[in-house]
Amino acid sequence: MRIIGIDPGLRVTGFGVIERHGHQLTYVASGVIRTGDADLPTRLGIIFEGVSTLIRQHAPDTAAIEKVFVNVNPQSTLLLGQARGAAICGLVSGGVPVAEYTALQLKQAVVGYGRATKEQMQQMVVRLLNLSGTPGTDAADALGMAICHAHGGDTLAALGELAPSLAKKGIRVRRGRLIG
Amino acid sequence: MRIIGIDPGLRVTGFGVIERHGHQLTYVASGVIRTGDADLPTRLGIIFEGVSTLIRQHAPDTAAIEKVFVNVNPQSTLLLGQARGAAICGLVSGGVPVAEYTALQLKQAVVGYGRATKEQMQQMVVRLLNLSGTPGTDAADALGMAICHAHGGDTLAALGELAPSLAKKGIRVRRGRLIG
Repeated sequence: MRIIGIDPGLRVTGFGVIERHGHQLTYVASGVIRTGDADLPTRLGIIFEGVSTLIRQHAPDTAAIEKVFVNVNPQSTLLLGQARGAAICGLVSGGVPVAEYTALQLKQAVVGYGRATKEQMQQMVVRLLNLSGTPGTDAADALGMAICHAHGGDTLAALGELAPSLAKKGIRVRRGRLIG
Repeated sequence: MRIIGIDPGLRVTGFGVIERHGHQLTYVASGVIRTGDADLPTRLGIIFEGVSTLIRQHAPDTAAIEKVFVNVNPQSTLLLGQARGAAICGLVSGGVPVAEYTALQLKQAVVGYGRATKEQMQQMVVRLLNLSGTPGTDAADALGMAICHAHGGDTLAALGELAPSLAKKGIRVRRGRLIG
């Protein structure tokens, strides 16, 4: 199963593509779509076309996108909503089913800890996918979304089945927290 | 010039298509896209596909869409933002340039009064387009958006050039207000 994860944003939209074979996760691609300084409709179009192009390039079976919440700044909420709408349209019009996870589900599934930092997310993504370099925070969040979906949205605590493959990577889980 | 107006909403998105020949405005089509009770990505996809289909059917030269503002309810703001993003993607990916007008600009351009009611908007749309029936409020707002763009987004007060054609319809403008 090939999964694309999307971290939507009006300025920068992160993406990450992985494959799951059994309990094995493999990195395929990641990066960001930047929208520059054009007017709003043009920037939404860039997100839409960018996601559509990724769908054609990588042909994912399914997609996972962050379920965003209202921001302290209502205007930012409105802009983020439109960016998310554009990204989802790119997925849906490309025929890719879309799953939604909250930031809490993302952090619990990938880092095993709901209040994980961006740096912890990057480190865990590097370890879980055996990456040689560290992706940027937007791409790491998107790869994390794909990993979260590969885990069925469950927390690491519930993933006893994954423990052996995690242990091979030197990752141990105790009471829902990652250790070592 | 053929213009499509869009009144975006997650549940109901209104649309209206008109033609402008000189100062003459002609009705082409109007209606709504309803998204039903599916999950959010599906509903955004329905808006996107609906707008895309309208572009193919009516081949507008340009589009006008309401510049939405933050709602009292932040969650509604987020949902409206996503619906608007989906509608704009349908327009942009169809190659149609998008202009944005606020509700204030819409009301001033069509009714000549920034605090006009939905009923006043419907009545003015009927008169300006010589309609035999009254469109619903969502379709009327969308037709109003198209009329607003046909007027160049200006208020009726600034439209001395339009006065003769308005007078033929029994509409008079005095100090930026419609009378009679």
